[in-house]
Amino acid sequence: MALIVQKFGGSSVADADKIRNVARIITETYRRGHSVLAVLSAQGDTTDDLIEKSREINRNPSRREMDMLLSTGEQISIALCAMAIERMGYQAISLTGWQAGMLTDSSYSSARIKRIRTERIRKELDKKKIVLVAGFQGINKYDDITTLGRGGSDTSAVALAAALQADLCQIYTDVDGVYTADPRTVQGARKLEEITFDEMLELASLGAQVLHNRSVEMAKRYNVNLEVLSSFTGNPGTKVKEVVKTMEKMHVSGVAKDKNIARLALVGLEDRPGIAFKIFSLLGKRNVNVDLILQSIGRNGSKDISFTVALPDAQLAKEVMEENREAIGFQSVELNENVAKVSIVGAGLAHNAGVASKMFEALYNAGININMISTSEIKVSVLVDERDAERAVQAIHDRFFSEFGNG
Amino acid sequence: MALIVQKFGGSSVADADKIRNVARIITETYRRGHSVLAVLSAQGDTTDDLIEKSREINRNPSRREMDMLLSTGEQISIALCAMAIERMGYQAISLTGWQAGMLTDSSYSSARIKRIRTERIRKELDKKKIVLVAGFQGINKYDDITTLGRGGSDTSAVALAAALQADLCQIYTDVDGVYTADPRTVQGARKLEEITFDEMLELASLGAQVLHNRSVEMAKRYNVNLEVLSSFTGNPGTKVKEVVKTMEKMHVSGVAKDKNIARLALVGLEDRPGIAFKIFSLLGKRNVNVDLILQSIGRNGSKDISFTVALPDAQLAKEVMEENREAIGFQSVELNENVAKVSIVGAGLAHNAGVASKMFEALYNAGININMISTSEIKVSVLVDERDAERAVQAIHDRFFSEFGNG
Repeated sequence: MALIVQKFGGSSVADADKIRNVARIITETYRRGHSVLAVLSAQGDTTDDLIEKSREINRNPSRREMDMLLSTGEQISIALCAMAIERMGYQAISLTGWQAGMLTDSSYSSARIKRIRTERIRKELDKKKIVLVAGFQGINKYDDITTLGRGGSDTSAVALAAALQADLCQIYTDVDGVYTADPRTVQGARKLEEITFDEMLELASLGAQVLHNRSVEMAKRYNVNLEVLSSFTGNPGTKVKEVVKTMEKMHVSGVAKDKNIARLALVGLEDRPGIAFKIFSLLGKRNVNVDLILQSIGRNGSKDISFTVALPDAQLAKEVMEENREAIGFQSVELNENVAKVSIVGAGLAHNAGVASKMFEALYNAGININMISTSEIKVSVLVDERDAERAVQAIHDRFFSEFGNG
Repeated sequence: MALIVQKFGGSSVADADKIRNVARIITETYRRGHSVLAVLSAQGDTTDDLIEKSREINRNPSRREMDMLLSTGEQISIALCAMAIERMGYQAISLTGWQAGMLTDSSYSSARIKRIRTERIRKELDKKKIVLVAGFQGINKYDDITTLGRGGSDTSAVALAAALQADLCQIYTDVDGVYTADPRTVQGARKLEEITFDEMLELASLGAQVLHNRSVEMAKRYNVNLEVLSSFTGNPGTKVKEVVKTMEKMHVSGVAKDKNIARLALVGLEDRPGIAFKIFSLLGKRNVNVDLILQSIGRNGSKDISFTVALPDAQLAKEVMEENREAIGFQSVELNENVAKVSIVGAGLAHNAGVASKMFEALYNAGININMISTSEIKVSVLVDERDAERAVQAIHDRFFSEFGNG
């Protein structure tokens, strides 16, 4: 007699057969005696098709009208899914974002949920109906339609689960769950039964995106029980929780790589206090986020600072540095776009010094050079040459997850 | 400084070029100093495509979910048209049915407008914005989306014009206006400058559908100035009014045919009082509407009754009669589906006996046999063989509208 929120992404509702499959998953859950609220994305390419339609007319439309346009995609999905459920003999009702009471701020195309008025949903659940809510959308205080931006439907689902105090929030996707590494490229990658919110956040930020970070952050804040699973295989998925049982036993949850970064090095910096702060506040003003940072003693008493930024920001970061060469006081800035970040993530890492050295050892044995190192409570990242990235992930994964090497 | 409501149908917004054309018509009206509210239908085949999607999933979906699905079509149109207007440098805002305050009853798929809350529209018009409203849709008291059924966007436009006391309601379509006969099949058919509401209603019910009857009835009730015109040619259209200037001069406004009917004849009825009432109340209970009725003295003191029904109702009407043969008391029922109704419509007909005889004369000269005759204040209809229908329309049209014959 639990309340279960289920979210189905665009590939899960791409055509009539897939919608029927989703309806089957929902009704099976319902038949086990649960209340079910499902959040749906737009079908397959619908959103891209709508964007293409708009580009034929105006390549720079107002974001309000764009949200008006795009929100139709999810509305089509929920109506069709309701029809599929009706066809199976169950009662369903579809609700758009505004009907479901999803109140957001007014940042069209990247709105944040402020509050959910749950009365309507509760009323329909009380009537024993299966409730289908359009993901990705809400309304602002002007009664205008907003969308939540990328990964928005995950956020809709987690927010609804939090507001309704649901017992479980299942995110159905086209992968089986969260793996120790990308199963498409790493041999021996294994599915995790459980993972903590923090590990999940680190993995997503490392480019192993399964869930959008906004939704994981929200799940962590409101302690929503999350589960990531496939809408196609019927296999058990990965549970995302605050604390997981297997934490003591296995220190490393996963290995991830991120090639979408670049490294900048400021060479010959004068050794003045506050210089690092100055650099990063100049970048922050231009919305450039800095990730790894390495400060080292250079030649002749000067020092060097290296840092990584997202690849699309690299040229801008370089320009910002050059514009401020005088103010910062350095000799030259070097940009290297052929780097990759490889990381291990695990809840117990900080309390187990052996883990990091085991990672470095694996890289050393594979002959891979480490450029930079960064560690946090639950993560160890190294910067390597881009061409070494795949080998690095496999070597580290083998070291931690091969049958004899798992430490 | 007038307020003008403009309605554009599905063929007028079918693709990006046509949407740009609509945006041009709207902004030209706006540039002349008017406030403009435009009501749009779904693009070209969008509604049919959505219906097809639903049929793949459920051939008998609930009408609530069907309305949820179909209402996305108009939402796409208004968003795209707003973008096109923005592109031309004007401020536009699109509003769905619920945002525009279109409150309806709960008859999903054929809802009736109950009231329009115009606050939001007025606010946007006051800000000098061009307002685009999704036609065909509204919400009921449960905050659920409803659609108005066929011709619904015309009704939306007229209702908005009435609620806002607009100075003019222009219905843009793919024809130039209202013609004296179907210009695709009748030689010499002429566009009317003006026509009365009543004539328009008769013409629509006769199968010369340009405007949906619901919208004309509403325009008549609230005395909305209507104009039917083409979104493609830029020609002046036809004005639909309560009283038209040319009424005294020309008695006949148009000639129309309707092949979508069938004739039933009950032969050998006992001559009892109230028998006609019995027949038509039996049909009424099964939602079969009767159009022309002819009662005649038959053989041996019995009588015959003939009547016409819409073609799709013909078999049902015959079954209803046969089921009640005893109660009604007749010998046989005959069904003829190969008939057509040809009518002339004109505001002054009832006061000008010569008009009807001129029509019969034209048919006699063309060698066309008349089965049944029916007259009203503004209409004379005759039933002819289906294969004579086109010739009948042309002969009547020639008689009234050829250069020398116009009476």
